[in-house]
Amino acid sequence: MDVFEAMETCRAIRYLKPDPVPEALIEKVIHGATRASSPGNSQGWDFVVVTDRDVKQRLADAIAPVVGMNAAALDSPGVSEGERRMIRGALHLASHLADVPVLIVCCARKIYPPQDPQELFVWSAVYPASQNLIVAARALGLGTTFTTFHAVAEEAFRSILGIPDEVFIGTTVALGYPDRPFGPVRRRPVAEVIHRDRW
Amino acid sequence: MDVFEAMETCRAIRYLKPDPVPEALIEKVIHGATRASSPGNSQGWDFVVVTDRDVKQRLADAIAPVVGMNAAALDSPGVSEGERRMIRGALHLASHLADVPVLIVCCARKIYPPQDPQELFVWSAVYPASQNLIVAARALGLGTTFTTFHAVAEEAFRSILGIPDEVFIGTTVALGYPDRPFGPVRRRPVAEVIHRDRW
Repeated sequence: MDVFEAMETCRAIRYLKPDPVPEALIEKVIHGATRASSPGNSQGWDFVVVTDRDVKQRLADAIAPVVGMNAAALDSPGVSEGERRMIRGALHLASHLADVPVLIVCCARKIYPPQDPQELFVWSAVYPASQNLIVAARALGLGTTFTTFHAVAEEAFRSILGIPDEVFIGTTVALGYPDRPFGPVRRRPVAEVIHRDRW
Repeated sequence: MDVFEAMETCRAIRYLKPDPVPEALIEKVIHGATRASSPGNSQGWDFVVVTDRDVKQRLADAIAPVVGMNAAALDSPGVSEGERRMIRGALHLASHLADVPVLIVCCARKIYPPQDPQELFVWSAVYPASQNLIVAARALGLGTTFTTFHAVAEEAFRSILGIPDEVFIGTTVALGYPDRPFGPVRRRPVAEVIHRDRW
């Protein structure tokens, strides 16, 4: 699939079919992810690929607060129709997390700069990789959503998945065949985010 | 261009021709960048596009230490041929920064979560957008490199570009027509970075 078509139609897919994703396709999206850039080619990324039903169920239980938060947000005043659609989608995804065929927890390791204790670039590999991952998935007809579910239940995620202390969780990506159509992403006009020669 | 071909051959291009990049292509790569994902579609990104020679020269002057660091690194013992090639490229780019046709300083704003003072997801829009930017550029035949030059001269970059205090610099991308061929990126085998069901 063409690069621009894939990026343009890479809408977050929060409704996924339960059908399993072939192993070869999972590896292909992670291959795409790892083609991303990282400072000094330090490749500070790791991917925990969760397909085991029991593990998914434990992660789903851990994010029960997300279900409640989204349910409450749906009833809040001043929520636009677009926001409501997104909240409904997040609510659906959070309450069906154990049914998501593949959860990919994209992790970050502080590798760069070498010999430097700063965490300056800790996110600069995992986020680019996550973006490549979702564009690669789109090109293969697989739907994805970046979620921030791990942020709500960070300790539970770390414990359930056995993530080492020195590793950070960047994104939790839900992956599967889409149950709603792909479509154009909605964004602010480009002119609003470009500054010429100075801010 | 096909998504996987673009990702696969998106090698960092540190040698760029001085030819200007048409305005329409600059906008197209930023259009691609802004198709990236961000938490809650918060779009916490901004792009300072620098083509003015004087501004580029001031940024080039500010990163003089990078030139020295790379020159010293070239002479260090225990540097592999691959690393040496990368260092030579970085040295070339840093010492010719004012000749780079377009510098795009990709910035981050803390937007998500709303009403939350945490900086939890400050990098989660700008890095995905930067990755889309370089893949989009590759698809258009334009070479790019993520640089971390701003980290060496953060205060100077902020002052020269007038970047507001609440805005963070994520990546500084050099963009132009390549003076060396595109080629496959070198990465660790995918099997080394995949963990199944738990770390």
